Amino acid sequence: MADWQEITGGITAPRGYQAAGITAGLKPSGLPDLALIFSDVEAIAAGVFTTSQVKAACVEYCRQRLQAKQSARAILCNAGQANAATGTQGYLDTLESAMAVGQALNISSESVLVASTGVIGQRIKMDALRSGIPKVVAALSQTGSDAAAGAIITTDLVTKSIALETTISDRPVRIGGIAKGSGMIHPNMATMLAFVTCDAVVSPHLWQQMLARAADRSFNSITVDGDTSTNDSLIALANGQSRTPAITEWGAEAEKLEAMLTAVCQHLAKAIARDGEGATCLIEVEVTGAHDEISARQIAKTIAGSSLVKSAIFGRDPNWGRIAAAAGRAGVPFEQENLQIKLGDFLMLENGQPLQFDRAAASAYLKKAVAGAYLQQDTVLISVNVGNGHGSGKAWGCDLSYDYVRINAEYTT
Amino acid sequence: MADWQEITGGITAPRGYQAAGITAGLKPSGLPDLALIFSDVEAIAAGVFTTSQVKAACVEYCRQRLQAKQSARAILCNAGQANAATGTQGYLDTLESAMAVGQALNISSESVLVASTGVIGQRIKMDALRSGIPKVVAALSQTGSDAAAGAIITTDLVTKSIALETTISDRPVRIGGIAKGSGMIHPNMATMLAFVTCDAVVSPHLWQQMLARAADRSFNSITVDGDTSTNDSLIALANGQSRTPAITEWGAEAEKLEAMLTAVCQHLAKAIARDGEGATCLIEVEVTGAHDEISARQIAKTIAGSSLVKSAIFGRDPNWGRIAAAAGRAGVPFEQENLQIKLGDFLMLENGQPLQFDRAAASAYLKKAVAGAYLQQDTVLISVNVGNGHGSGKAWGCDLSYDYVRINAEYTT
Repeated sequence: MADWQEITGGITAPRGYQAAGITAGLKPSGLPDLALIFSDVEAIAAGVFTTSQVKAACVEYCRQRLQAKQSARAILCNAGQANAATGTQGYLDTLESAMAVGQALNISSESVLVASTGVIGQRIKMDALRSGIPKVVAALSQTGSDAAAGAIITTDLVTKSIALETTISDRPVRIGGIAKGSGMIHPNMATMLAFVTCDAVVSPHLWQQMLARAADRSFNSITVDGDTSTNDSLIALANGQSRTPAITEWGAEAEKLEAMLTAVCQHLAKAIARDGEGATCLIEVEVTGAHDEISARQIAKTIAGSSLVKSAIFGRDPNWGRIAAAAGRAGVPFEQENLQIKLGDFLMLENGQPLQFDRAAASAYLKKAVAGAYLQQDTVLISVNVGNGHGSGKAWGCDLSYDYVRINAEYTT
Repeated sequence: MADWQEITGGITAPRGYQAAGITAGLKPSGLPDLALIFSDVEAIAAGVFTTSQVKAACVEYCRQRLQAKQSARAILCNAGQANAATGTQGYLDTLESAMAVGQALNISSESVLVASTGVIGQRIKMDALRSGIPKVVAALSQTGSDAAAGAIITTDLVTKSIALETTISDRPVRIGGIAKGSGMIHPNMATMLAFVTCDAVVSPHLWQQMLARAADRSFNSITVDGDTSTNDSLIALANGQSRTPAITEWGAEAEKLEAMLTAVCQHLAKAIARDGEGATCLIEVEVTGAHDEISARQIAKTIAGSSLVKSAIFGRDPNWGRIAAAAGRAGVPFEQENLQIKLGDFLMLENGQPLQFDRAAASAYLKKAVAGAYLQQDTVLISVNVGNGHGSGKAWGCDLSYDYVRINAEYTT
């Protein structure tokens, strides 16, 4: 049983946070495109960023900021232009954005983090941004989470938001999160972005460790199209406003906080996979029996990312041969004669030997999972056992449909 | 300038080879499905096989055979059933196939190699195979290359075949090849298969080394959907019937032979990428300035395999941002400020800075490459420079179209 409960309020559910989202004129569509998250006090800040060699200017900036000082008070995020592959000028634009936010909030610009999402190779429309910043500051509110969540999306069909609450030393501690992403890269829109707020009192070092592990078990375990973005950013603030005893070393309370942080990240990550471009269902792959968690996750992610598995699920075809083939090429050694594959409750391969199964019923199981890309009852479960090891891991993806191709081919820069 | 010329005859162009392809009743479609390649004398045999942990029975068999004895006289190949993930019985089926061919040809079964392609998880239809073997032996002929090439294909739209000739010590030496493949895995059809014949006199050790390098520069550098098959096999015979001086160590003649072998493999590999499921064009990616050839190829392959790059090319969209993003996530370190990207002759990014370019003309360049998936004038060229290193490498792929999804979703097992 989970040690926490779901609450409303998103990133403004934890105490001491305000958020806002406005239309600054950055997106051609005229939809909201500028978000701001603000902590009443300086918050511990941890970040996990893209591993790509081609990094957006804002990613370079945030990494440097967080290396110099592991705290922050504000996160500005624009949608419309990714500010990636924009050279020196792109970096100067990010710097100017941070300074403008610092001035408007009357805080040091060193406490401002910046994220961007949109078309790669395009600089931020700075005139629109300059006039937008005072407006987004004025719009800050303790109920502004939904507005912020709506201002960071691009091709997403829905916003992604969650808040959880637990107790530490009998006092409530909350974590909230918002995310955007409809592909690891979007159609010309670079980016998976997620912002997490927390009011726990926790040491910077522990918070960063927790975030890195939670990212591996959530955002790093989803795949829509295998393309890692230039802008991927996960930033988590912890401002201490729960006034619980400080968590400074590993123990039951640190584990509880990390588990809740992981749950927030997994909720957002699954919401991104479910909202994958063109997706009609969420695919959850669980691998057991591997040597360790990393190996298990590697196999799970390879299956979830296989174009052939994804197309088969789109066609509602219980084609376990493709699952076996994807497991085999994951780069993780295992004995073929130990391989077991289940689709839902249907056992299809055991000890490496194909089994007879009710093909019509298995196909019906897949057909049930067509409930639309953002409902919760749309999950196809693939379970794979590769041996007798204790390592297990999960990954999430979505099916590959005509619409994925349409979305990514018909868009013209 | 190439040191060789193209000739007709495919795998029966080199002296001392016969081939055949017949309909044995293995494919539901009733199309030819059983091929045999035969060398008049025992030939040096080298093989490169799938790296997947899930290997077809025939792959296990061929690896063992070639480890025990690096020569062969016959290769039997069936299409229709991949004989992968078929357990112990699948292995026994392969053994029985080899013995039946050995008997029919009156040679040792240890000189018979076996390959299969088709649906994963299905055993070969052994009754049909047993009655087909005498027929395919009877059909062997010195002009049987096209028949064999036609009997190994599955979802391929065209057969793939080539023959080249050079001179060694003033005598002609020939290499012929046939291949099948329309995806690294096919829609339920496992497999890339290629068979190469050569009449050079060459030592087994050198021949295997040449083949491994040629495979890296050809078949291992193509991607249709990133899915490595359970059945991938490349087998090359060299039967010495050119009666040229034996090539037993590295030197000018060994290099000449390897260059021609590489050209044969690259021709077949490009033919597979061009015939990729749903493809409307061939994409050639050339990466220069890397530290070494392997790094360059890794970047090239990542770009050629990116779903977003592939969808953009299908939409004829000169979207260089996706090329930059794919290069960045290839796992090869480089400095972003050295990155240069060209699409055809259009320079789009230089020293990491985006350039102005004629967007309409670039799109027109892409639109020229719609000439159908199996013509030669359909190539989109992407050139990427990542620095000042001397490593360069190429990879080939195809675009991602609605038809890829249709082919892989609508098929029902």
